[in-house]
Amino acid sequence: MKQLNAEIVAVGTELLLGQIANTNAQWISQQLALYGVNVLFHSVVGDNLTRVHAEFEHAAKRSDIVIVTGGLGPTDDDLTREAYQLLSGTPIIEHKPSMDKISSYFDRQNGTMTPNNKKQARVFEGATILENKVGMAPGMIITKNNTIWIFLPGVPKEMKQLFSDGVLPYIKNKTQDTTTIESTMLRFIGIGESQLEHEIKDIIAAQSNPTIAPLAQTEGVAIRLTAKAETMKQAKQLIADTQIKIEDKAGAYLYGIDDETIEQKVFQLLLEQRKTVAAAESLTGGLFTDRLIGVEGASAICPGGIVCYDTKVKEDLLHVPSHITRDIGVISAECAESLALNVRSVLGSSLGISFTGVAGPDKVEGYSVGTVYIGIVDGKGTKRIKKFIFNGDRQTIRKKAVWKGYQLLFNLLK
Amino acid sequence: MKQLNAEIVAVGTELLLGQIANTNAQWISQQLALYGVNVLFHSVVGDNLTRVHAEFEHAAKRSDIVIVTGGLGPTDDDLTREAYQLLSGTPIIEHKPSMDKISSYFDRQNGTMTPNNKKQARVFEGATILENKVGMAPGMIITKNNTIWIFLPGVPKEMKQLFSDGVLPYIKNKTQDTTTIESTMLRFIGIGESQLEHEIKDIIAAQSNPTIAPLAQTEGVAIRLTAKAETMKQAKQLIADTQIKIEDKAGAYLYGIDDETIEQKVFQLLLEQRKTVAAAESLTGGLFTDRLIGVEGASAICPGGIVCYDTKVKEDLLHVPSHITRDIGVISAECAESLALNVRSVLGSSLGISFTGVAGPDKVEGYSVGTVYIGIVDGKGTKRIKKFIFNGDRQTIRKKAVWKGYQLLFNLLK
Repeated sequence: MKQLNAEIVAVGTELLLGQIANTNAQWISQQLALYGVNVLFHSVVGDNLTRVHAEFEHAAKRSDIVIVTGGLGPTDDDLTREAYQLLSGTPIIEHKPSMDKISSYFDRQNGTMTPNNKKQARVFEGATILENKVGMAPGMIITKNNTIWIFLPGVPKEMKQLFSDGVLPYIKNKTQDTTTIESTMLRFIGIGESQLEHEIKDIIAAQSNPTIAPLAQTEGVAIRLTAKAETMKQAKQLIADTQIKIEDKAGAYLYGIDDETIEQKVFQLLLEQRKTVAAAESLTGGLFTDRLIGVEGASAICPGGIVCYDTKVKEDLLHVPSHITRDIGVISAECAESLALNVRSVLGSSLGISFTGVAGPDKVEGYSVGTVYIGIVDGKGTKRIKKFIFNGDRQTIRKKAVWKGYQLLFNLLK
Repeated sequence: MKQLNAEIVAVGTELLLGQIANTNAQWISQQLALYGVNVLFHSVVGDNLTRVHAEFEHAAKRSDIVIVTGGLGPTDDDLTREAYQLLSGTPIIEHKPSMDKISSYFDRQNGTMTPNNKKQARVFEGATILENKVGMAPGMIITKNNTIWIFLPGVPKEMKQLFSDGVLPYIKNKTQDTTTIESTMLRFIGIGESQLEHEIKDIIAAQSNPTIAPLAQTEGVAIRLTAKAETMKQAKQLIADTQIKIEDKAGAYLYGIDDETIEQKVFQLLLEQRKTVAAAESLTGGLFTDRLIGVEGASAICPGGIVCYDTKVKEDLLHVPSHITRDIGVISAECAESLALNVRSVLGSSLGISFTGVAGPDKVEGYSVGTVYIGIVDGKGTKRIKKFIFNGDRQTIRKKAVWKGYQLLFNLLK
């Protein structure tokens, strides 16, 4: 297989104004990664001839494949054709099938075709033309000084159709691609990025295929394994072999593969063990339960829950004794334990989990913001009550508490 | 005002693999556009020292301001510091306040600080250090050969805090910006984008400062008003004048200004009217209550709630009569009414709201996916029970139901 380096150049001032994100580059990158083409750069340039031309010049020097999105439309600020002509001197000609299509569209709509609509049928002489089945401007592929130039419209729907139908087959043929790339994400809970990297540093050092990339996530840490091989089966085997080595070092923290969430994992464990869980949530306000009920089939493992934000609800619905609420206080291990025990009995679940603490912005009962007690109990005397201090604003503290609750539950069930 | 040209360089292989979109560049571009800084390029480069260095060299030649996001983390593939050092020769030193913060974080967590964690406290000698209030690595601003280099972490939350608190004031000072731009978002619920645009079309047509941009949002619709003037006061006055005209046409649907959420608005209305609300949530799983408890001071207006996913919880805790659960069914107006009435009495709130329906993926009791009943009652005979059919997957249906619940509550209270 010939290794090609690609870059993606998006043309459009709307991207530089932040009106849209460059999701085209993201999508194309995902596709190319699958087919073993290295994407080394993305760039975005506005609708300005000098700057688009300069960007093309720069791209031509460093990439085997340049994929350009945008700037092929009918208006005066669509300048991709002009910029490439400036770079390459390639003549621009009318593409009859595209012109016929545009004319017949305006005939059908009884609309007037203004001269600039014709612009969309203009193509580079000698280019391979890719038929646009969902819009007007065709895609183009043309080679100049050993660089393959691929021009696609910026409208995502049109770009995707042209890429899938025209570009991918072309690239697969060009790279004589017999290799396949497989990528897997391993997701961890209860271990930091640097500690995880430390645990598996020997594996990382000894390893080049698959590559091993630790990534901090909004919640937890992930490791991305990316393998190249002649067949999908071989690539999967390479990943599986490395995964076993990583699990050997850090398997206790592994909760999910690819898009699997911690609540899906907990759901699965509960289902396997024929257990159910109910939560008594004070500061977390229902978020723990909501995430669990977001999982398809949740009714088998969660009957419901109680949000006991007010002390009175803790006392009345969850029977926390008044000597706890009044003398010890609701921000306490005792309260967390009572809530977990009683939510379990009130809702008839096999496990009970509770969250009580200070989300902020103000202290409660003298406890500083971020103080959270989480309790978990089962019916066989297991009792885990833990205190945490979380940093961040109100929402961050609440989310961290929920994430920690899932971690404790996962540790209990795994 | 001095005109500065900026570019944004994102460092991170995850972007080139398409695992995430470059939303950082989008957000920063939006901010800079407001302050009159031209963003001429975005680029993305992977975690590779040679290529990051080359990209920095290229950026230095063409931009007055280079904003770099990412590559400041603790792992070996975080190479932004090294690449800039290669370009500039600037020594890298330890930033004591950042180091102290990292150490005390690990002390608090009783975690082990591995050597690579220290990397996040390393900064360029002579740089202005921007305090990271939500993470570890500080931001940095440093000038080299008339180019202003701004380094920010790639984690969006950290990047945004550092940009707002540190970068924007710096840039405003640098551009000697004497015109001021003020921007306000007006947020609407219960009206579609095209209807809203239709209602205010005369105002849009007659108006150039402020500009009026209707924007579809994930929830509801917004209008962004952006005014330019010599002083903040004048800009605010221009916005206020236009806002009055818009409210005159569509004020009944206006719930929030700027970042105000519907739950904050509902919170405010409940507070003013000295009312409280409690929810009985079946398919919504606690999400309605969670959003309300996310608002600071929520204890004044929400005692808690009950997640009654299982029919038995509806019967036992919320006393829905068995003739409803068994004969009529839980996906019914009768069940929604009973839940709303009883959650109100069980939790002692002035208002009760209920959600019962089919989130999917499977039908329930013959009702198709997306069928949802929402009920609201107060203590004075007000009773609003409505049926909806929502499109989308399980999570979308659940979120739409919660949004609609807030809309109904807002309509009742306003």
